[in-house]
Amino acid sequence: MTGAGDDTKHLAEQTISGEKVYGGVLLHVHRDSVLLPDGKPATREYIDHPGAVAIVPIVDGGMILLERQFRYPLGTVMVEIPAGKIDPGEDPFDTARRELLEETGQTAAEWRHLGTIHPLVAYSNEHIELFLATGLTATQAAALDDGEHLETFMLPLSEALEWIRDGRITDSKTMIGLMWAERLRAGLWS
Amino acid sequence: MTGAGDDTKHLAEQTISGEKVYGGVLLHVHRDSVLLPDGKPATREYIDHPGAVAIVPIVDGGMILLERQFRYPLGTVMVEIPAGKIDPGEDPFDTARRELLEETGQTAAEWRHLGTIHPLVAYSNEHIELFLATGLTATQAAALDDGEHLETFMLPLSEALEWIRDGRITDSKTMIGLMWAERLRAGLWS
Repeated sequence: MTGAGDDTKHLAEQTISGEKVYGGVLLHVHRDSVLLPDGKPATREYIDHPGAVAIVPIVDGGMILLERQFRYPLGTVMVEIPAGKIDPGEDPFDTARRELLEETGQTAAEWRHLGTIHPLVAYSNEHIELFLATGLTATQAAALDDGEHLETFMLPLSEALEWIRDGRITDSKTMIGLMWAERLRAGLWS
Repeated sequence: MTGAGDDTKHLAEQTISGEKVYGGVLLHVHRDSVLLPDGKPATREYIDHPGAVAIVPIVDGGMILLERQFRYPLGTVMVEIPAGKIDPGEDPFDTARRELLEETGQTAAEWRHLGTIHPLVAYSNEHIELFLATGLTATQAAALDDGEHLETFMLPLSEALEWIRDGRITDSKTMIGLMWAERLRAGLWS
């Protein structure tokens, strides 16, 4: 299940030593000394992350449930699919159910794991497990985490794809989730 | 050109103070004190990044030029489209031409900017400018940066998409670039 092929050991880097150089509220930064494939030394810095989930929630009739959320690093409100961090020891399926309910107040009749996304391989080990949620039912009011402020709205899948094309949607997990859902809808993927 | 709508000021967070808490070889981490929309204080941590480019290089006949590269944070070799960081003051188009030549030895007859990707909005301000490069010509041997080790190979676009579906390609910019190229090829987008 790797596209890297069998003979990729000659590309590998070897860890010599490592330390945690910053431990914050959210971010945990590591700096390791490594040996490159040619034997030269190098420094690798990266964020250690517990992993996350993202959910493509499809409402009856093909509408997608999306969120508007202020993203501080970018200083702007982004349009995204629901997502959240996996708690220690939590099954990603349970994270997905929990986050969809907390952020949108919806439960889904059918859940499906679509795939794994690595959003930023250069300096984060974060993986995002991507789910498709269909058969949505409004169950309760959204119960946002303390300090979490977001709004939900609905958009036809066709229009959400147009928002990717014209630059109104630029969040990577959202772009991938919507294009993946469209390939399923079109029968290109099963 | 924002999908956030006109009335999103009530979601915004206000910066009170900020400091750089880690300045490394690659990573620059900031920690800011902010006021949330409800007036409560919070801490925001994020990576400050100069931005990057990624290129979907299409060879004659619809083959895609891909790379295998060891990604230390994940401890594995990843399959990716060519990409690289924007130098200070550099035009992203020039970055794209430079990175394609350095990493693959190819020049392209036609260049097109497809869009912008924000790979990780929760804790990085990185933006990736996505380009399509067609009419490739092998110009020189690849001239990798010091410490850069990667291999290139070609795959039909249809097979590369299958690698997304079955989990052999999980890098976000690569997933987006390939699915975008496929929508152009299929005439869904122009």
